[in-house]
Amino acid sequence: MGEWFAKFLKSAGFPVLISDLHTELSSEDLARKCRVLILSLPMEVFPKEVAKLGPLVPESSFMTDLCSLKQSQVACMLEHTHCEIAGTHPLFGPAEDSIKEKRVALCPGRGKKWFTWWEELLRQHGAVTSVVSPEEHDRSMAWAQALNHFTLLCLGKTLDKHGMDLQRILALAPPSFEQQMNIVARLYHQDPELYATIQMSNPYTNSVLETFSQYGENLRKIIREGDRSSFIEFFEEVQDLGRLILLLKKDK
Amino acid sequence: MGEWFAKFLKSAGFPVLISDLHTELSSEDLARKCRVLILSLPMEVFPKEVAKLGPLVPESSFMTDLCSLKQSQVACMLEHTHCEIAGTHPLFGPAEDSIKEKRVALCPGRGKKWFTWWEELLRQHGAVTSVVSPEEHDRSMAWAQALNHFTLLCLGKTLDKHGMDLQRILALAPPSFEQQMNIVARLYHQDPELYATIQMSNPYTNSVLETFSQYGENLRKIIREGDRSSFIEFFEEVQDLGRLILLLKKDK
Repeated sequence: MGEWFAKFLKSAGFPVLISDLHTELSSEDLARKCRVLILSLPMEVFPKEVAKLGPLVPESSFMTDLCSLKQSQVACMLEHTHCEIAGTHPLFGPAEDSIKEKRVALCPGRGKKWFTWWEELLRQHGAVTSVVSPEEHDRSMAWAQALNHFTLLCLGKTLDKHGMDLQRILALAPPSFEQQMNIVARLYHQDPELYATIQMSNPYTNSVLETFSQYGENLRKIIREGDRSSFIEFFEEVQDLGRLILLLKKDK
Repeated sequence: MGEWFAKFLKSAGFPVLISDLHTELSSEDLARKCRVLILSLPMEVFPKEVAKLGPLVPESSFMTDLCSLKQSQVACMLEHTHCEIAGTHPLFGPAEDSIKEKRVALCPGRGKKWFTWWEELLRQHGAVTSVVSPEEHDRSMAWAQALNHFTLLCLGKTLDKHGMDLQRILALAPPSFEQQMNIVARLYHQDPELYATIQMSNPYTNSVLETFSQYGENLRKIIREGDRSSFIEFFEEVQDLGRLILLLKKDK
């Protein structure tokens, strides 16, 4: 995503400097020099790099990151800097041509001047920004990423294990299952390390997965025992949620 | 779906007679009279109706059904008739304007003449037909319907229970989660009774749900213990499946 944002900012008319493992320009040079510093780093090395670079960033500069989690990342940037800080989570992948209609989560850290500049820049180019606290962000991501990936992985693994004829099952797929399979298929292009960190570093994941698993056990028991009325009650509660989702989408 | 097929067959130029709870024409009249009898009935009353109508159908006629399960349904039609028999499962909903590019599963029962006519008619209008045995059909549906609905219901219920601000979570949804939520939302328009039967009457459901639940427990343990290498192994196995899905889709 670092490359993606470099391209985006260049095309928006800004001079962009890049430091990477094999560039002559060091990250320390960038930290001292640039007015806006965008950190695109694996979350595993993030704290170490911020501890190294943070103290070099002038107070009048702006630092933001592109991590998929925000709570400890924003805290870490605040700890090691005196400059303006915000957390950025682009909710789209590097395959997108444009930021138009793409969602971006923004977490305020320190300062308003640069935050406003950054949010307006993204919006001007069509992004749909949402401002949330880092805690709210990670809590939402426990569903939107961790639980979502969890169900897809278990679905894929179950399909694999039963040694089903995949060709036949796809030939017989109703639309919703086909969509699920398309999402599973897209995992092929993803980085397992990133997905591991998204699951394991989000403090809210375990409780969400536990709830999911408990409902799974309840529903399995209902199905095993052929308890139709409890199944229908369960189903209708999800339909209430479905109605709410449809209403919210309509409002947009 | 009965109404849908009545409209479809009328527009294909066939005379169509309909018997329903409030029609003057009785189902017995139809059974004796029509050369092609299409049963569109809730699966709960299906066996009783077939036992009543089956013996009235002339040997030279054709009987098919539109149930979402096929193993006991085709067996039931075979038991109570001497006419040609096939099972039909349209893998699309009544909201579709046309059968073009829609999947239809066909299960041979007895006889070839009418089966060929029926398959060709559907194909001529653009349906993508798949011929499978009733057992293969139901086994596939344990994934494509039962497991699929199961994960969607547990996902919806989990979201509901944690009392999340749904508006915020949708504002922060990455594309794959948004797609999942759209599928959950569509359950609002569905019939809980039908979904109960799909879960509870498929003999293969329980074993598939048990496998899913076991993988869920394994993966939860891996995540809870922060076992990155096991997570990555799990992820890469699903990526292999993903690669296969992408290849099969490309071949089509």
